[in-house]
Amino acid sequence: MSQAKSNFDQESLDLHALHRGKLEVTSKVPLATREDLSRAYTPGVAAVCLAIARDPRLVYTHTIKANTVAIVSDGSAILGIGNLGPEAALPVMEGKAILFKGFGGVDAFPICLATQNVEEIIQAVKMIAPVFGGINLEDISAPRCFEIENRLKEELDIPVMHDDQHGTATVVLAGLINALKIKRLAAADARVVICGAGAAGTAISYLLLEYGFRDIVVTDTKGIIGPTRRDLNPAKAKLSAATNPRGLAGSLATALTGADIFLGVSAPKIVTSEMVRLMRRDPIVFAMSNPTPEIMPDEAKSGGAFIIATGRSDFPNQVNNVLAFPGIFRGALDHGVRKITKCMLIAAARAIAGCVPDPVPERILPSPLELGIAEAVADAIR
Amino acid sequence: MSQAKSNFDQESLDLHALHRGKLEVTSKVPLATREDLSRAYTPGVAAVCLAIARDPRLVYTHTIKANTVAIVSDGSAILGIGNLGPEAALPVMEGKAILFKGFGGVDAFPICLATQNVEEIIQAVKMIAPVFGGINLEDISAPRCFEIENRLKEELDIPVMHDDQHGTATVVLAGLINALKIKRLAAADARVVICGAGAAGTAISYLLLEYGFRDIVVTDTKGIIGPTRRDLNPAKAKLSAATNPRGLAGSLATALTGADIFLGVSAPKIVTSEMVRLMRRDPIVFAMSNPTPEIMPDEAKSGGAFIIATGRSDFPNQVNNVLAFPGIFRGALDHGVRKITKCMLIAAARAIAGCVPDPVPERILPSPLELGIAEAVADAIR
Repeated sequence: MSQAKSNFDQESLDLHALHRGKLEVTSKVPLATREDLSRAYTPGVAAVCLAIARDPRLVYTHTIKANTVAIVSDGSAILGIGNLGPEAALPVMEGKAILFKGFGGVDAFPICLATQNVEEIIQAVKMIAPVFGGINLEDISAPRCFEIENRLKEELDIPVMHDDQHGTATVVLAGLINALKIKRLAAADARVVICGAGAAGTAISYLLLEYGFRDIVVTDTKGIIGPTRRDLNPAKAKLSAATNPRGLAGSLATALTGADIFLGVSAPKIVTSEMVRLMRRDPIVFAMSNPTPEIMPDEAKSGGAFIIATGRSDFPNQVNNVLAFPGIFRGALDHGVRKITKCMLIAAARAIAGCVPDPVPERILPSPLELGIAEAVADAIR
Repeated sequence: MSQAKSNFDQESLDLHALHRGKLEVTSKVPLATREDLSRAYTPGVAAVCLAIARDPRLVYTHTIKANTVAIVSDGSAILGIGNLGPEAALPVMEGKAILFKGFGGVDAFPICLATQNVEEIIQAVKMIAPVFGGINLEDISAPRCFEIENRLKEELDIPVMHDDQHGTATVVLAGLINALKIKRLAAADARVVICGAGAAGTAISYLLLEYGFRDIVVTDTKGIIGPTRRDLNPAKAKLSAATNPRGLAGSLATALTGADIFLGVSAPKIVTSEMVRLMRRDPIVFAMSNPTPEIMPDEAKSGGAFIIATGRSDFPNQVNNVLAFPGIFRGALDHGVRKITKCMLIAAARAIAGCVPDPVPERILPSPLELGIAEAVADAIR
């Protein structure tokens, strides 16, 4: 990745400086004559304001709320880079907005908040909610992201989704659906190891449980999360209670012994081919740390991995959130969905998996640039 | 206006429903290939994030902050309609955004806040400020708007302007500059009556004082604001101390007696032709209440008015904020202005007045659709 990355570094800097950011806010209505002005602004617009005041539902038919999502970040967990604050997060949120528009036809606007205080973030999002038909939380660090998302889901009447959690979980599940199909293995019979107990690892765990997986063991930097751990924060304690049915303790290697599936959402190069060899025959290895995976595909293969996915576009089977979030919000906006449920995410994962009709080990997920994915996901959200 | 208005009512409702709002958020960069994705989003974007984290000034050259303004309202004083809340305010803010883009090339995004609490509004705007290069406050009722603007000007390092105050004041001053030129009257010698002591009336008063007017008398619904009034809120008490040098008390008619200039930013039909007759010979009458002026132009004329302006597009001399705000923010963004001062607003007013090289009573202000106005204003802001 380091070469590929450095190639894009300067090109990306140049692109951003050339355009001074990637988004513009443009008019959908004409503005050439005095009459255009009178319809789009005063005096005509007053009739629209009064109509909405009389019937608040019209905000969904006569304003941008119909098709607009806020991408909200506090810059505390930007990509794989870390906590750089709201200004440095903006290029990522702008990029996300163009993906929303390009793949889902959703108008999305970045909101980077000058606070990392949970209560202030919740209040700020509630304050700005009137303009938006949905809230995409992004790059907010765990465990703060859990409380922020849960509170906003309760307190707002528009869909709220932390994409690092649920977008990732949805695409991972989509890949697993096809991987299990190839292996002819049932979810209920599979042993899963999830390495990483942050936003993504936690959400993957719960979505897989909801889908029907039973044997999930989660590890963090201190090893297996289970009943003997005395250092768990409330979110991890809850995760411990929901997973690890065999009560394992110990290292990642212990967890991997006899496992069918490895899902890495953690750190570069922490898995060796020897560790893959501890897994059951023909294992599934999703090494999704970015830009450098937990184990490079060739090493995973030499350890016996049968189906391999990464977070990168330069290897087969890229686990890319863009397969999910544009369609999820497209569907939520089109169908008046007020809460995005696990049930909807599972339907979305099935729809993404269905975009690869005949999966093979080198192709369990579609490419983001294939057509029709967001539409299929949006239909599934209904 | 009632006929003109009703003609546009249904057309405006239809237009808004057809497009589901008036704005879209579009990409300035291509998104067709895997390489496009890698430059606009991961992995390339990480280099931009890191560069901004190292040098925060780059947020002004590599992100939308360079050219983006928030249009912030709490919906407490929407046009002439009143307090209808944030959702009903959205069509106005969207309209404002297309004017920003159409006339100033500024990307503007509406932020309608779910609170009318002064402190919460200030906090919310401070929280969202990282994305924006400027804040346009809009349709926030007086006297709350004064504290909100003052606090935000102090506490943020980007330009903040309440357009209902300063945009209006700038265009009024532009009109007066040309009206006084026609009348060969010096500002220092003119007697001015300002009817309305809300956001606009207050800002007009202070800008005119800064420009060189000396004899300004402000009235509100209870009459002349002056030393004998015991019912003034702090903002009006301050205004009282700054104006009314002859210590007048009494009604609007008392104020108008012997005045050269009437500036109405108050309520429909509260001035009669008899009252205009109380003014000095050939008076200037700006009746800017919208949609129905304080006095209709024909009545003002029959009372002897020499130069007449309104807020309406269907009479000569429309006092329209769109002459000012797109250029003011265009200039502030282009020249790195952190605070918009009265001095800049006066320069902007002179620039707008200069767009009418040979003013006559029927043409003291340019039409918003004439070319070059925003550019002239932006240059003046430097």
